[in-house]
Amino acid sequence: MNFKFIFRIIAQILAIEIVFMIPSLAISYSLNEISFRAFLISMAIIAAIAILLLIITKGAKRGKFYARDGLVTTSLSWIFMSLLGALPFYFSGFIPNYIDAFFETVSGFTTTGSSILLEVESLDKGLLFWRSLTHWLGGMGVLVFLMSIVSLGKKNQGFSLHILRAESPGPSVGKMVPRMKKTAEILYLIYIGLTVLNIFFLLLGGMSLFEASCTAFGTAGTGGFGVKNDSIAGYSPYIQYVTTIFMLLFSINFSIYYVIILRRFKEVFKDEEFKLFWIIVLSSIALITINISKMYTSLGEAFRHVAFSVAAIISTTGYANADFNLWPSFSKGILVTLMIFGACAGSTGGGIKQARILLLFKNLRKNLHKSLHPSEVKAVLVNKKPIDDDILQTTNAYLIAYVIIIVLSFLIVSLDGFSFETTLTAIIATFNNIGPGLDMVGPVGNYAAFSNLSKLVMCADMLAGRLEIYPMLILLSKTTWKRAR
Amino acid sequence: MNFKFIFRIIAQILAIEIVFMIPSLAISYSLNEISFRAFLISMAIIAAIAILLLIITKGAKRGKFYARDGLVTTSLSWIFMSLLGALPFYFSGFIPNYIDAFFETVSGFTTTGSSILLEVESLDKGLLFWRSLTHWLGGMGVLVFLMSIVSLGKKNQGFSLHILRAESPGPSVGKMVPRMKKTAEILYLIYIGLTVLNIFFLLLGGMSLFEASCTAFGTAGTGGFGVKNDSIAGYSPYIQYVTTIFMLLFSINFSIYYVIILRRFKEVFKDEEFKLFWIIVLSSIALITINISKMYTSLGEAFRHVAFSVAAIISTTGYANADFNLWPSFSKGILVTLMIFGACAGSTGGGIKQARILLLFKNLRKNLHKSLHPSEVKAVLVNKKPIDDDILQTTNAYLIAYVIIIVLSFLIVSLDGFSFETTLTAIIATFNNIGPGLDMVGPVGNYAAFSNLSKLVMCADMLAGRLEIYPMLILLSKTTWKRAR
Repeated sequence: MNFKFIFRIIAQILAIEIVFMIPSLAISYSLNEISFRAFLISMAIIAAIAILLLIITKGAKRGKFYARDGLVTTSLSWIFMSLLGALPFYFSGFIPNYIDAFFETVSGFTTTGSSILLEVESLDKGLLFWRSLTHWLGGMGVLVFLMSIVSLGKKNQGFSLHILRAESPGPSVGKMVPRMKKTAEILYLIYIGLTVLNIFFLLLGGMSLFEASCTAFGTAGTGGFGVKNDSIAGYSPYIQYVTTIFMLLFSINFSIYYVIILRRFKEVFKDEEFKLFWIIVLSSIALITINISKMYTSLGEAFRHVAFSVAAIISTTGYANADFNLWPSFSKGILVTLMIFGACAGSTGGGIKQARILLLFKNLRKNLHKSLHPSEVKAVLVNKKPIDDDILQTTNAYLIAYVIIIVLSFLIVSLDGFSFETTLTAIIATFNNIGPGLDMVGPVGNYAAFSNLSKLVMCADMLAGRLEIYPMLILLSKTTWKRAR
Repeated sequence: MNFKFIFRIIAQILAIEIVFMIPSLAISYSLNEISFRAFLISMAIIAAIAILLLIITKGAKRGKFYARDGLVTTSLSWIFMSLLGALPFYFSGFIPNYIDAFFETVSGFTTTGSSILLEVESLDKGLLFWRSLTHWLGGMGVLVFLMSIVSLGKKNQGFSLHILRAESPGPSVGKMVPRMKKTAEILYLIYIGLTVLNIFFLLLGGMSLFEASCTAFGTAGTGGFGVKNDSIAGYSPYIQYVTTIFMLLFSINFSIYYVIILRRFKEVFKDEEFKLFWIIVLSSIALITINISKMYTSLGEAFRHVAFSVAAIISTTGYANADFNLWPSFSKGILVTLMIFGACAGSTGGGIKQARILLLFKNLRKNLHKSLHPSEVKAVLVNKKPIDDDILQTTNAYLIAYVIIIVLSFLIVSLDGFSFETTLTAIIATFNNIGPGLDMVGPVGNYAAFSNLSKLVMCADMLAGRLEIYPMLILLSKTTWKRAR
């Protein structure tokens, strides 16, 4: 393991974190907020650590970089970034328990949006801005951001690919263009473009620039931290519809936008994941609207609440405009299923990902066919291309790891003694980076009551969910630490 | 599809069903019960149908028999057997809704033990005996029973293997001896021997022969229908411990007993599934005992209740001696996990099976290793033998199908509007052939309140769980019905 080089990258990640804290520092300075001091101290500490790391790792050679190094770089970067990103919350005194501050920051960077705050409106604006900005930075990935501004060298395309693979969601990474730096640039340009568009439409609806930015950051990263206690419920139907549409737009594989920019429109409608996503979204909205129609005064109002909630859940954003905890079991069942399915691969959303669901279904069909016709060889096709057996195997293993992590986390968190529904959906909601679950952690609830142990387990789950399990599992492997050079 | 030959086998299965109804007929005759007439009518109807089938299918040639035929034979046999086995409940008037009677019978044959009866003690003894006997017959499999008494021809070892594979639980079928008839015979001899031993120990505890037989049938098949309203809770600690031990004995792969008979003791302790099973049983008992110790007057009493409940759940029997619905979430979480894991392959128990859990774990480890060392080729070893890639693939596909069936069933049953916990655990408990779930369907609850649609969905789940999914899925395939010859 090339730890020297890994920590050199982490130092650069910390530099990026400091830069991203500047707007919050400015906001809290201009509003004369107590958190100004907290930001100053935090940034000084982070800077000191970054400089220390740079000094220690001076002269680190890139050397040979294996898949394992890429995974460890990613997971360690995220852990450091979260540990230090929590400092402003802690120093400001708004979140006096450091574990809580860490939970809130992990929830931010992983775009989960689960909160331990009982209410948010009394928080300093600077802190709220930082809280929402963690969603935006975590959504597309901080290492991808680094790659988009710094070239890691033309010779190191392999290394860059390992990182991109570890940080980007989905079973297979679509390199848009051969060069990694260019791919990262394109991703961030699309991301910035869509975010600006979202802010623009929110401003049209009468939001202040501060609220519009924070809301758009939460939407873009599919995070879900809001700046109001009732999330999006208090805003106008226009704002709710804008948010619904943008939550869905950010759930789509970004390579679709690239294809649109290149005017290859036909490919969009041939994409099987894209089609599956819309079929699931539209049928879920239809089924739940029918199921709950009697609970609202008009069908239109029911539709608005359902469309918003379905978009919030399948995109794994977790904004709320209605308390779906009060909806019937059937509707709740669909929502929990959507939580597990999640958004499309290559988007900023979480969950198992539509692409994996597609692969799992097709693999099941292949195996059924094979059990009846043992001699026939049939490949799994996606978008008419045969899928490599290795990707199928990895996808299967992913499902296994997914189930095991849910079971183990459930057992530990159940020690807190909350209801079966609370415990199970808290795990599902954090692991899939959604935010709200059901019962105590429903749309109007929060995660404050869990024990510190449970909060740390959920932090690990959020990171495992965002980084798609393997980078976190690797940290538990003995070999990772043994081969230190 | 060779339907003629398939229906000829089904006629023989129905003949076996009639024979197995004779003891109940005798009991209800000797006790002058109202159900005597119900049994007579039912047996006449079943006989008429069997004869009709034999006449229609006269001259059926065995011809070529494919894997698909074996699977369809199995699933159709079980459906017919359940549809007609429900008649005595229905005709006696004790279960006036035929769907309820069908649910109770499917629950019996699949050794689930979920009941729609609010109380059982007012039922005729003849009916109770039939109800428990369905567990015994379903436990080892009715087609295996047929095979053990009728040779299907030396040339048809392939066909017999397909049937054995479809009806016996587990990812791979261990042929004990090359000839299928002999294997089926050995299985049933061990099964009968253990059942007689169980009855003997229950008689020693002061049970009547009737109660001892019914209880042993429920234990042997890992079913769980009892003859008392409070299941096993009212019996002495001795009876409870005997039942605990036998529930565990029937959860073990029967090939272990065969190896013991052959005095190859070393192999027993080398068997990885056997070891995994006992590790899970003992650690679950320890963890839950610590968790609930304060709820009972002494540690010994807590241990007895926990050992019984763990054995009842992991064996998927579902007998109850304590209302674990009242235990803390942590204990409930372990029990739900055990529900999903289930018993060993090649036993009479349900669930995913320990052997599959072992394969899934090992497969995950292999894939993790491979993602780090793409060039190394490493096989999955069980009992030091490499596992065929096909079996791994099928096991993965099994997990996928398992998750999909649970999600779909949950959505349909949630339309009834019961709590999240009730709905989810009702599906898990029926699909894994356990019996009780949590909340409304907990150890002291029942399944009466569900709608007819939900009951039919759960019947399909129970059959899919008992026959391990594929035979039931095949029935949904168009090709199965198209190629009729």
